[in-house]
This record gives sequence, structure tokens and C-alpha cells, in this order.
Amino acid sequence: MNIGMFESFVTGHWFSSEAKRLWSDVATLQAWLDVEAALARAQAGLGIVPADAAATIATKADARLFDLPRLAHDIAFAQHPLVPVLHQFEGLCGEPAAGYIHWGATTQNIFDTASALQMRRTHRLLAGHLDAAIAALGRLALAERDTPMAGRTHGQHALPMTFGFKLAGWIDELDRDRRRLHERLAPSFVACMGGAIGTFAAMGEAGREVEARLAALLKLQPAGLPARSSYDRASDYIASLALLAGTAQKIAQDLAFMQRTEIGEAAEAFHMGKVGSSTMAQKRNPSTALLLASLARLLRARVPPALEAMVRMDEGDSSATNVTDTLLPEIAIIATSVAETLARLAEGLVVHRAAMRRNLDLTQGLIVAEAAMMQLTRLMGRHEAHRLLYEAAQRAQSEGLPFMVAIAEHPRLAAEGVPPGLKQALEPSAYVGASAAITEEVVARATAQRPAA
Amino acid sequence: MNIGMFESFVTGHWFSSEAKRLWSDVATLQAWLDVEAALARAQAGLGIVPADAAATIATKADARLFDLPRLAHDIAFAQHPLVPVLHQFEGLCGEPAAGYIHWGATTQNIFDTASALQMRRTHRLLAGHLDAAIAALGRLALAERDTPMAGRTHGQHALPMTFGFKLAGWIDELDRDRRRLHERLAPSFVACMGGAIGTFAAMGEAGREVEARLAALLKLQPAGLPARSSYDRASDYIASLALLAGTAQKIAQDLAFMQRTEIGEAAEAFHMGKVGSSTMAQKRNPSTALLLASLARLLRARVPPALEAMVRMDEGDSSATNVTDTLLPEIAIIATSVAETLARLAEGLVVHRAAMRRNLDLTQGLIVAEAAMMQLTRLMGRHEAHRLLYEAAQRAQSEGLPFMVAIAEHPRLAAEGVPPGLKQALEPSAYVGASAAITEEVVARATAQRPAA
Amino acid sequence: MNIGMFESFVTGHWFSSEAKRLWSDVATLQAWLDVEAALARAQAGLGIVPADAAATIATKADARLFDLPRLAHDIAFAQHPLVPVLHQFEGLCGEPAAGYIHWGATTQNIFDTASALQMRRTHRLLAGHLDAAIAALGRLALAERDTPMAGRTHGQHALPMTFGFKLAGWIDELDRDRRRLHERLAPSFVACMGGAIGTFAAMGEAGREVEARLAALLKLQPAGLPARSSYDRASDYIASLALLAGTAQKIAQDLAFMQRTEIGEAAEAFHMGKVGSSTMAQKRNPSTALLLASLARLLRARVPPALEAMVRMDEGDSSATNVTDTLLPEIAIIATSVAETLARLAEGLVVHRAAMRRNLDLTQGLIVAEAAMMQLTRLMGRHEAHRLLYEAAQRAQSEGLPFMVAIAEHPRLAAEGVPPGLKQALEPSAYVGASAAITEEVVARATAQRPAA
Amino acid sequence: MNIGMFESFVTGHWFSSEAKRLWSDVATLQAWLDVEAALARAQAGLGIVPADAAATIATKADARLFDLPRLAHDIAFAQHPLVPVLHQFEGLCGEPAAGYIHWGATTQNIFDTASALQMRRTHRLLAGHLDAAIAALGRLALAERDTPMAGRTHGQHALPMTFGFKLAGWIDELDRDRRRLHERLAPSFVACMGGAIGTFAAMGEAGREVEARLAALLKLQPAGLPARSSYDRASDYIASLALLAGTAQKIAQDLAFMQRTEIGEAAEAFHMGKVGSSTMAQKRNPSTALLLASLARLLRARVPPALEAMVRMDEGDSSATNVTDTLLPEIAIIATSVAETLARLAEGLVVHRAAMRRNLDLTQGLIVAEAAMMQLTRLMGRHEAHRLLYEAAQRAQSEGLPFMVAIAEHPRLAAEGVPPGLKQALEPSAYVGASAAITEEVVARATAQRPAA
Repeated sequence: MNIGMFESFVTGHWFSSEAKRLWSDVATLQAWLDVEAALARAQAGLGIVPADAAATIATKADARLFDLPRLAHDIAFAQHPLVPVLHQFEGLCGEPAAGYIHWGATTQNIFDTASALQMRRTHRLLAGHLDAAIAALGRLALAERDTPMAGRTHGQHALPMTFGFKLAGWIDELDRDRRRLHERLAPSFVACMGGAIGTFAAMGEAGREVEARLAALLKLQPAGLPARSSYDRASDYIASLALLAGTAQKIAQDLAFMQRTEIGEAAEAFHMGKVGSSTMAQKRNPSTALLLASLARLLRARVPPALEAMVRMDEGDSSATNVTDTLLPEIAIIATSVAETLARLAEGLVVHRAAMRRNLDLTQGLIVAEAAMMQLTRLMGRHEAHRLLYEAAQRAQSEGLPFMVAIAEHPRLAAEGVPPGLKQALEPSAYVGASAAITEEVVARATAQRPAA
Repeated sequence: MNIGMFESFVTGHWFSSEAKRLWSDVATLQAWLDVEAALARAQAGLGIVPADAAATIATKADARLFDLPRLAHDIAFAQHPLVPVLHQFEGLCGEPAAGYIHWGATTQNIFDTASALQMRRTHRLLAGHLDAAIAALGRLALAERDTPMAGRTHGQHALPMTFGFKLAGWIDELDRDRRRLHERLAPSFVACMGGAIGTFAAMGEAGREVEARLAALLKLQPAGLPARSSYDRASDYIASLALLAGTAQKIAQDLAFMQRTEIGEAAEAFHMGKVGSSTMAQKRNPSTALLLASLARLLRARVPPALEAMVRMDEGDSSATNVTDTLLPEIAIIATSVAETLARLAEGLVVHRAAMRRNLDLTQGLIVAEAAMMQLTRLMGRHEAHRLLYEAAQRAQSEGLPFMVAIAEHPRLAAEGVPPGLKQALEPSAYVGASAAITEEVVARATAQRPAA
Repeated sequence: MNIGMFESFVTGHWFSSEAKRLWSDVATLQAWLDVEAALARAQAGLGIVPADAAATIATKADARLFDLPRLAHDIAFAQHPLVPVLHQFEGLCGEPAAGYIHWGATTQNIFDTASALQMRRTHRLLAGHLDAAIAALGRLALAERDTPMAGRTHGQHALPMTFGFKLAGWIDELDRDRRRLHERLAPSFVACMGGAIGTFAAMGEAGREVEARLAALLKLQPAGLPARSSYDRASDYIASLALLAGTAQKIAQDLAFMQRTEIGEAAEAFHMGKVGSSTMAQKRNPSTALLLASLARLLRARVPPALEAMVRMDEGDSSATNVTDTLLPEIAIIATSVAETLARLAEGLVVHRAAMRRNLDLTQGLIVAEAAMMQLTRLMGRHEAHRLLYEAAQRAQSEGLPFMVAIAEHPRLAAEGVPPGLKQALEPSAYVGASAAITEEVVARATAQRPAA
Repeated sequence: MNIGMFESFVTGHWFSSEAKRLWSDVATLQAWLDVEAALARAQAGLGIVPADAAATIATKADARLFDLPRLAHDIAFAQHPLVPVLHQFEGLCGEPAAGYIHWGATTQNIFDTASALQMRRTHRLLAGHLDAAIAALGRLALAERDTPMAGRTHGQHALPMTFGFKLAGWIDELDRDRRRLHERLAPSFVACMGGAIGTFAAMGEAGREVEARLAALLKLQPAGLPARSSYDRASDYIASLALLAGTAQKIAQDLAFMQRTEIGEAAEAFHMGKVGSSTMAQKRNPSTALLLASLARLLRARVPPALEAMVRMDEGDSSATNVTDTLLPEIAIIATSVAETLARLAEGLVVHRAAMRRNLDLTQGLIVAEAAMMQLTRLMGRHEAHRLLYEAAQRAQSEGLPFMVAIAEHPRLAAEGVPPGLKQALEPSAYVGASAAITEEVVARATAQRPAA
């Protein structure tokens, strides 16, 4: 019985299958067991548990040896998520090793450290998709470095730019998103082994050394003060994912607009067999872009409960950890899917330069009113120049005239004559500013060799 | 491979198994088929499709006849959630009936109407648990109608009340939550059959009559204006569920406090074998209450994306419907689980009257300062009375004196003498106001025979 | 020193000045005093306080008599929001009346009941603007009942409709929003007078009768069980406002799209002197629509904290009431401004029918592919019809052909001949379904005489 | 007429008056003018505007010279937030300088760069309060390094710890919050001067150099690609403030619990004259802690709209910038107030060691069940040890026995005898683990000399 969006026959394909595998029941159990094995090994190195026991524990720390349906049943009965796992684990190890499993640890230590391992794997996956998206957008940006199109603010044509410049804006933001995630991964997901309340009481003097060695074995940072009621670290990475979601949704929305029937400046990949509608045979929907927007919303919506769940009673509070324990896998899968979908969208993008040019010319010059403004300002001051152009522009719009005609016919210029160079200034493709240079710089910076995560 | 909290071996048992069944893949597909069958039947009644075809369609509208894995595969390829279902359905029906399936409908019509059927079933389940919770709390309230305990504001003892009164406050709020859901179910989840944009164009003149008959067959209200880009109706019910979540979390939080080691006034059901900790053998955690609080948070967190997804482009927008199509099943399952967990918590509650009395007496009379205030105000005005009692109370707290002693020793009363009746006023159990009467009224109102949903 | 968006020189004009007046310091203080006066009057009627005292209290219950700056100072010192008000009030009344002020009430009783009065006034203001918006949209809908335009889903042309039908969809949703607010106002904002924890202890037997009489005097419903830690009632109205925000933002977004440079189907009111940009003289931005979207977001964002603040400790919890006491005025002002801005936008809307027609014809017939589908399905079954039209449509799009040409040239029809009537079916304005009828019905329903709130 | 929580006579004192001053109308206008002056100066340095003009502009860039009420009026009429300011500014400068004001800039450039200046000032204020809070908590932690108290999980006694250790947990988290804010300030709030869509078109070749020089003059980082529709940078700092809010609310909630009537382990500063209730004279509420929790909620609630407002149409979108332009001042003021309130709370905290000890002993040894567990595990394996102690603990709780008695009487030990050392293990103050060492380390790290922001 499939339940929930990740495995549903309708929506399962929205989500990264690799990310789902990383957070499946089996993978989660295995991550717990990996932590238990590393704990025993760290403790054996300090003489806290016998080396033999640690070796047995490591050998049996294999999720395939466990009876998952029985675990599910026993967990429901005990109303404790780990004790039944430990029981099966003890059975697999046998005495005396069984006695040394989970020595001095508390359940949440295992969960938090295991999820750090899972998040690191998730991050690699996600970062790979992000790299691919940036690379694809970067190639496109260089190819369209000089393609003029309308820049739009508040839904209205504002100034010309190039499509490369538009893409550079997305790349720049994605690059910052990626850098934030790289930098914050390690401090956000740490190894915690302080026991029930973080005092290391059960391990005596050696506690912090055990945590440090465990962390080293797992290639994580040690928590140091492993407070279970502290979730700011993970929340920081989660909040950074929300920024990625914001960027992705912005890109998705812009592309859905560019594919609008009336705009037609870009289109996402299409294959025969892709269906837009059960009755409207003509439909080529920007379904990948809209899916990306949906995934971004699903991701962003999960940030407020994570932030709220930072607020925890005393030294531990399952009303909060229940929330974050179930939220983190969802966030991990959705975030990876955002990056994967973004890469797919970027890689398949089709550009229609002619449509860009057609749209750019729609306003018959109004889109370069600023260029005229800059010229007239030198002549008559910015206030006066704005008044003249404002009047000419409103008349051009009301009467459907080319802007140049309206300017030339404005009482003031009709008398004084049109200043030289103004006509040339009204060629949109000549007023794209530093579009090309910025495009090249941003692409170079974002696609430079980066150090591995 | 289990993924996601609903089926996870760790957390699957948090969620109502009946609700999960209502929203499984098979149940969802069946709901779609039920709508397709009803559509054909409604159209047959109006002579739009042949009666034979409608009969065949109804016969084959059985999810067990479909190949779900193939559906999942085809949906991923077509990137359309319904067309592959229609293909299999056509294959099952054969011509000529196949040609009349889904006549004049659009995908979202089927999804929205099917989810209305599923939400009605969910509502019944949820309402049953809510009734059980209210009934259990009602029995307890009557039993504890006169049990005095401390009323607390801002974490401090404020005034005495009875435990029955406290329970009555919860019941009153739950009763309002329940009434809102009952009243809003039908207008929130309606039958929509207006086609791609809601104009009924594909069905010609008969469109609205088809929708009306379909609605009647399914015992739903017709949408009337079946705008696909309108989601205020469902959002209203969803927002009302957030109010239930608020109530449930408030109750959960109060009970977790009452079970605090130092308070001990109530405890949730315990059975030998329920484990509080993997190392701390003594732990009897309020795990059901804290789970309830978690579920309430999971539910509440899903309201903002539903409200945001009301904002939809034009006549249809999958960036929003993708969100609500995946959100609604989650909301349905979690909400039912909130009600189910609340009922279980209420039914197992154990009350410790002695602890309530012990806590009530902790402040040696300060908790009834208001009673003294009411008496002294008659004597010396409220301003003066507040000053005298404020000074006495602060002294009582600083020096650990019984409040009566501090009052009697206050300079003004030391001179004038303590007014008669003041001592009696300082017996906490005498100052519970209308606790008992309110308890009885609320319980009577909330447990009266209600009309079926 | 102006601080905060309501009074800022930049953004103050976004907000309804009448709503701001209803929630100014003076108006809030007056509302408190109105409640205190009504309380004394209710108690005088029951012989609890002397009639003379009640009369004095009523006379002095006038915010203009208070020293607001001193109040602000004393409140900061006492860290209590009402006690300093009571002190000044006592000074104004003099003994013996002073002794009967606020008899048996708690601060939050006054605040909650006073805010009920303020919310009722706010509701009237808001409802007036909503009526105006619906009326303006209704007039427009009737005028554009038959104006054909493109219906769009997922940003792509889907089917034709009329502009009247589009407006009807908005009106229908606004009408539901309005009805919900009307119905929920009274049960959401009630008179509470149960004292510190709601037991009416300070008023003895008469407590609930005092609350009932107070409620009657203020024309509010009595709370009955006046739990201070219960906020579901107000939250319900607040959540309903979020639905209004969703509708408003949807409308705003659609209009901003329709005013897009490339679309040009509608424009908001413009006056000479309205400036779109400091440098781009041509800019006519849909600034009212975008402001409406912003206000809707500001409103919607305030719902989650209101829902979270339902969760309150025990019998009173200022960590929650602080939030809702400051949130409610913001919500009230912003919601009124949403309705006011929506009305202004609706009243000034300019329609460009020619642009609607031009856009409708852009796809050379593809927009009525469904009409062809309905005809061909009768001939060859839906599966086959979809295949044929899908192929023809994709070819039409790839090669820029009129749809009818691509259909006629499709191998199957090239052989069999084009069925009669198909050409006529491809006239967009003939395939608007029940657009006109629905427009008329919805407008009639939404603008019918409604009972006063 | 005061409207809004920042200036309300009731709640104005909740908010940092210095932060309010930084975001008043006058301060905002001044920040705009500071940017305009720096822009002119940067351009003069490059020969774009005459040096004289830049000097005049700098001289007149003084908010006190402006007519604010007239500005408010003109802005409402023009529906543009800056053009009326420029008009007054031009009047003040006179020609020819007037013609060089705002050269090549767009309104949002000025707003964004000005708010960067205001945020830097806000950050310093906030950081100062955060330093004070950490210093106060640090002093307290060292003083209470060895004070034993109950560690609690899920509301139940879990293990002993010291109060210093608890404080260290808070300090550690606050220190991370502070470090994040320090590191993210500069990259979050940058100088942007790219013109209407970020292409620098109006400034020709020199555009990016102007931005770089402007940034240097204002000691900000240049945006580089100054996309107006990119808000991830500011959102990152805002999201980091939400982490601070989470920490603050957690601390506030813990302290409110510790001050509970039944717990009494800590209390916030109290002064005679501080009033807890208008009728309950005894009330000493944790009003500062609860205010802190409220402020944290107000802050956290403002993060989702900031994240949502990252999603912006095309090259500029006032439906989003309207939101963030009004949100940022609110966030700045509330965040500073969170830090200020936290410092005040920390500085006034009173500790009741005797109550801590009394509570620690409440369970008669159960709180150190883990200590017994660690000892017995060596003897009989963890499974058997857990079973024995679980049975003894449940019996101790059911019958109210000291834990040691229940252990000793357990059938297995009754036969075998109690192992030596077990009794000593059950002294709570001996089982606080690394509490003291961790306290010292954390305080040393968090109060070490930090580099200036």
C-alpha cells in the first residue's frame, strides 16, 4: 500500500530516486547501525569496550540482517523508536558483545549523528545537480551573451538587456546558494555523543574523547556541547535550502512566463508523447518549470516548522524532535529534487531569439526612454527632461505613435529641434549596458574549479 | 522500499491506519474511477452518452483491474497524471464504451471531485475520533467537577478552580472545532465538472445539468462555477483543521506540564513494556501528549502552503495544484491522527487529586489574594486594597510566611484589626467560582445528540 | 518620530486611514473605557455596584480626559498594560466611584472585549469596501459578458471564454469570502468577563449574568466559558481573512499579467502625474495591482503566528496574548486596506477588447482544439481523436500553420476528408460554453440585497 | 495619532528605542540622502558629474531640510516613493547641481543601499546587546558551574547536571547565532547601483566602477551584479535572525518554567512597583521572559514572507519589494529588541540553589537510574540490566519507594546481593559528568576577545 507523495504512482516521479534511496527505511536503519559500529570502535580504541566486542558489533551492523516488519511492530508497542532495534541487534551479536552496544549513548545521539551522515550524502547528490544546472545555464548564457531582449520591471518593459545577462543573474544567485550550502554543511550536521542530556556522564572522563574519535571515524565535526535541545545548527542548513528554493521558484516563474503563448521567448524540452491535457491536444505546458515551482514551495513550506522546532523544553523534548526527525528526510528528498529538476529544466531549454526581438520592438522605442532621458538631462536638467519624456511617452502610448515621433513633436523640441544622437539612442540593442561583460564574468566565476565539498 | 513518515518503520504507527487506507494509491485511483463512473451515469441520464456505455464504464471502474506499476511508469513518461489511467481504462472498457469515458471533463475536475469523496470519508473518521475524545473528556470533567486545583496564568498560580472546569475549557473549544468542521465540509468539497476552464464548453447546453446530476449521485454539492483556479473552499476546511490543531496542541502541552516530575497532577496511560529511554529505566514520558503536540505542529505547518496555493495564475496553474494535490492527502491523514491520538490520550488519562491539592496549598494562601482583594476593596477602595495586599504578598514571598500572617501583620491591619470573614476567604477550595456549574453546562452541551454530518 | 509602515511617509498612504483611526492609541483606550463603563452599568443593574458609581464611571470613560504620554511612561515602569490606566481612571472618578471600576474583571477581559468592539467596526468598514469591489466587478462583468478572450491554464492558451466569465469567477470567490466573514464575525469576537481564569469567582453567583448583560449592552455575544487561554474564535475570523487575501492576490496577479506590455488586455486607472519610474518616463506600472498583492501577502503572513498563538499555557499566557494583542490591530488595518485597494482597482479598470481578440487569434485555431476533439471523438473514439489532433497540433506549432490546415493535411483526414462542421467549430468565439449564463447568474447572486452584518 | 505596536502607549516600551530611531522616517530619508551624496561623490571622482555639483548635493543631503508632511502627500499622489523626494532635493540644490542628482540610478538602488547602511547600524546595536547577554550568562555560568540540578527530557527528570552546564548550552547556541550574524552582515547588505535592471546602461562604461567607489565610500561590498530581483543576500541574514529568535524563545521558555510556582529554581528581576495583575496582588510573573518569547515569535513570523518575497517577476517586482521594504525595518527593530530583552533578562536573573536541590531529590534516586544501569550492565549485560532497573523503577514510582530500596528488593538482587558501589552511584550530585569542564570551556570560548564586526 503506497501512501504519501514520495511513492505515489501519480507523483513518485517528481522526486529524486537516489535521494529517496538515501532516506528509505533500510538506509536509515543502516545509518543508525553505522553510528553504533563507529561508537563501539571509538570506545574500543580507548579501552572502554573490548576490541572483540567492537569487531562483532561492526560485523553485525548490517541492516539486511534485521527483521524490519517486526521492528515496526515492536516500536509501535514499546512506543520507543530505538530500543527494539537494540534488542534485535543484541540478538545478532550475542553475549558478550551485545552488552557493549550503544554504550553510554542516548537514542537522539544515534539519530542525530546518523542523519548527519545521510545529509552529507544528500548534499553531494544535491550539489551535483546544482553544478549541472549552473553549467547548463552557463553554457546558455555565453551563447546568448549578446541576444537582446526586453528587461521587465513590474510586468512592464523597462530597459533592454541581453538574455545572457538575465541568465547571469540566475547563475549568480544559484552560485551563492551553492556556496552557502557547501560552507554550512559540516558545522550544521555534527557528531553528538553526550548521552541523555549531553553531560557525557555515562562515559565518565572519556566521554568527549569518544565523541571526538567517533566524529573522526565518521568524518564529521564533533558537537562539543552535544545539547539535544539545540537545533540551530541543522536549522541553519535548512534555512539555506529555503534560499535555494526561492531562487529556483524565481527561475521557474520567469521561464513559465517566457513560455507564455503570447511571449514565446523560451520553451522547455518537449518530446512527442508528453501530454499537456486530456482534451486540449495542442497544449505544450511548461510542466517542468511549474513542477519546479511546486517543489520549491513544498521545500520552503517546511522551513517554518523547522525554525519553530528549535524551541525545545529543557534538555530534550520529543514534541520538537518528532517534528524535525520526520521533517529532515522530507526536506532532504525535496531539496535534491528541486536541484535535479532545475538541472533538467536548464539542460532542455530552447531559446527563441526572434520572439525576443519581436517583443523588444513592441513599444516602438519606449523601452529606451531612459537612454533619451540621459541625453536630454545633459541638455535641460533631469526634472525638465523627465517632464518632456513623460508627456511624449504617455502620448505615444495613448495614440500608438513611435516614441521618436512623439518626442520630435513635443512642443519644446518641435521648436528647438531634436538633439543629434537621440535617434541612435533609441535603438534598443545599443542600450544593453554591461550585459555582455557581466555575463562573462559571472559565468567564469560560477563555473571555475571549486574545491570538493 | 518504504519512504516518508506515513509508512516508515519508526513513525508509521503515529498515523491513523484507516486514514492511510483512504488515501493509498489504490483508494485514490478508485475515487477517480468512481467519479468517472458517476459522470458517465449522469451523462447517460441526459442522453449524452449511451446507457450501455455508461454501464460498461461503471463495471470496469474498479481499481483492482488496473496495472498500478505500469501506470506509475507511463505517468512519468507522459508527464501527465491522468491520461495513462484513461488509456488503461479504455482498454478495459473496449469500444464503443471507451469513447465515452471522461466525456467533456478535464483532469482537475476528476481530481477535485474524487478528493471531495475522500475528504468526506476522512471527515467521518476524524469526527468519530473527535466525538470519542470529547466523550472521554466529558466523563472525566463530570467526575472531577469539584476537584480543586491551582489555576495558573503566565506560569504562576493565579486563582483556584476545579479540574472539571479546566477540562470544560478544552471541551468547549473542541466542540467549536468540531462544529466548524461539520458545517464546512459540504461547501468546502464540491463536485466540479466544468471542463478545462470551467465554461462547460465541451458539454454544450447540458454542462451544468451534468454537474448537478453528478453531484447528486455522489451526494456532493455542485460547484456551480467550477473554476479550477479557485481554492478558497477547500482552504476554508483546511484552515479550520488548523484551529483543531491549535486546540490539540494546547491540551497536549498542558497535560505534559501536569505530568512533569514536580507537578504530578495527571499522567497518561502507561503499560508495562512502554519504554521511556534506552538507558534511563525510570522514564515514564508523556509520549502520547508530546506525539499529539508534534502531530498538531505537522498539521498546522501545512496550512500556510495551502493558503499560498490559493493564488493561481489565470484559469489553471499546476504550480499551485501540484501543491494542493499532494498537501490534501497529508493533511487528511495527519488531521485524523491528531483526533485519534487525542482520543487515546483522553481515554487513558489518570488523575492525581492529592497532587492537585498539594500544589494548590503551596503558596500558603497567596493563590486567593483576589478573594482578599474583593473583601478589602469594599472596605478601603480597590487602589488601597491592592497596595496593602501587594505589600503583604511580596513580604510573604520574600520571607516564606503564610499570606494570612503577612496580611494580619501589615501596619494598617495590625492597627485596625483583620476584618471578619477574611480568614475563611483564604480557603482555596471555597473560591472556585462557577467552576462546577460551567463544567456541567459545557459537558451537557458538547455531548448532546448531534445531527449526523 | 514616525516608525512603522502605517505612519511612514513612504507607505502610510497604502493603508486605510479610517481603519488606522479605529486602532489608534486613543481609539483603543476609548474602547477599553467603553467596556469598563458597560461593565459598571451591567453590575449596577444587578445591584453589584451602586448606580451612582456606574454613572460617574460612564461619564469619565472618555479617552480625551487621560494623559496618554504619562500612561505610556507608567505602563513601561509597572510593566503592566492596564493598571496605570485604572489609576488615572480612579483619579478622574474620585471615591467612592473609583472603588467600583473594573470590579471583578481581569485585564485580558477588557482587552478582548474592547477588541471585539473594534473588530466589529473594522468589519463594517471592510465589508463596505468589499461590497464596492463586488459591485464594480459586477458591472464590468455584465458589460463584458460576451467579450471573447483566451482562457489560459499553466500559462498556455487553453480554451476561449468571455471576460465576463473570468470576472464572474473572481466575484463568486469574493462573495464566498464576504459571506464567511459576515457569518463568523459575531461568534469570533465575544464579550468575556470571567475574571483572571474565567471562573467568575470575583463576582460570585452573578458573574455569568454580568457577562450576559455586558454583552447585551455592547451588542456582542457572551463568551459563556470565558477562557483566556482559548483563542480559536478570533483565529477563525483571522483565518477567514487569509482566504480573502488569497482571492485578492489572485485577482491582483491576473490583472498585472493582463496589463503586461505584450498582453495589454486591461489596465488599471492612470492619471497624469502618476509616476512609474524616476528614469523610465514611459512606465505605466500596474502599481495598484502590485500593491494589492503586497498587502495580501502582509495579511496572509500574519495568519501563522495567530494560529501558533492559539497554543497557550494553562489558564493564561502572555507569551501568546502579547502576540495576538499586537497582531490583531495589524491584521485589522491591513485587511481593510486589502478590501479598499481591491475596490479602487476594480473601479478604475480599463478593458481593451481589441487586445483580447488579437491574443485569442494568436494560435490560429489551436485554442479550440478541444472543440475539434469533441467532434472527432464521436467519429473515431477519444483515443484516436486525441492522437490525430495531437499530431496536427504539434505540427501546427512547429511549422506555424493554421490548425485547420494541419488537421486537413493529417494523413487520416487527407484520405477520409474533413468532417462537416469542423471548420465552424474552430471559431473561438463560438466555443465559450456557458460563459454568458454563468456571468449573469453569479453577478445576480453576488449583488442581491444582503442582510446587514 | 499613534498607530502600530512600535509607538503604541501600551507596547512601545517593548522595543529598543535606539533601533526605532535608526528606522524612523527621518533616519530613513537621511540614509537615502547619504547614498545620493555618495553616488554624486563617486561619480565626481570619475568625472561623470562636476565636482561642484557633487559638493552641493552633499551639502544639501540633510533630512532636516526636507518638508516631510509634504513629501508624504506628494508620494501618495505620484504613487512613487522617491520622485517627490528628488523634486524637493532638486529645489534645495538648485541648478546646475540639481541636474546631477540620482544620476543613472534607479529608486530601488537607493533603497537597497540605504537599508544596507541602516542594517549595519542595527547590527552593531544588536550585537552589543548580544554580547551583554552572553557576558551576563557567562558570569552566571561560572558562578553556578557546580550547582547540581535536575536535567529534564520530555518534561521528566532524566539525569543530574549543573546549572552552569545548562547555561553553557544556551551560551554555546547564542555564540553560534552571533557568529553567523557577524559573518553574514557584509555579504547580505551590499551597495547596488546598476540602474533600472542592473545593466548599468545609464552610466555607460563607468557603471561598475561607480558602484565600486560608492561601495568603498560607504564601506559596503559592491553587489557586482546588482539584480533588483535578487533578494537571497538579505534573506540570508534575515533567516539567521530567525535562528537567534529560536534560541531566545527556548531560553525564555526554560526560564518561565524554572520560575513556575512549583519549581522556583530561578526568577527574573523584580522591583517593587512591578505589577503582575490588576486583582491578584501576589503575582510575580516572568513577564520579561514571556515578553522575550513574544518578541521572538514576532521575529520568527516575519521570516516566511521574506523568503516568499525572494520570488520576484523578471527584473523587478514591486509586489515583492513592497513586502521586503516594509518588512526589513520591522525585522531590524524586533531583532534588536529580542537581543536587548535577552540581555536585561540575563542580567537580572536570580538563582535559587536550594530549590534546585529540593527538586533534584524529589524522585529519591530515580534520576540516576542510568548510573545504576552503567554499573549493572557490566555485571549482567545491558538488556538484563535494563529489565531489572525498569521493573524496580516502575515499582518505586507506583509505591513511592526510594529507588535503592526497590533495587535491593528486586528478586534477582535480593538473591545475589547489591553490588558494591551501587549506593554511592545513586548520589545525584556525583553523576553530573563533564558539566563543570564544559561550562568553563564554553564560557571561555564565547567570551574571548572577538574581532570587531
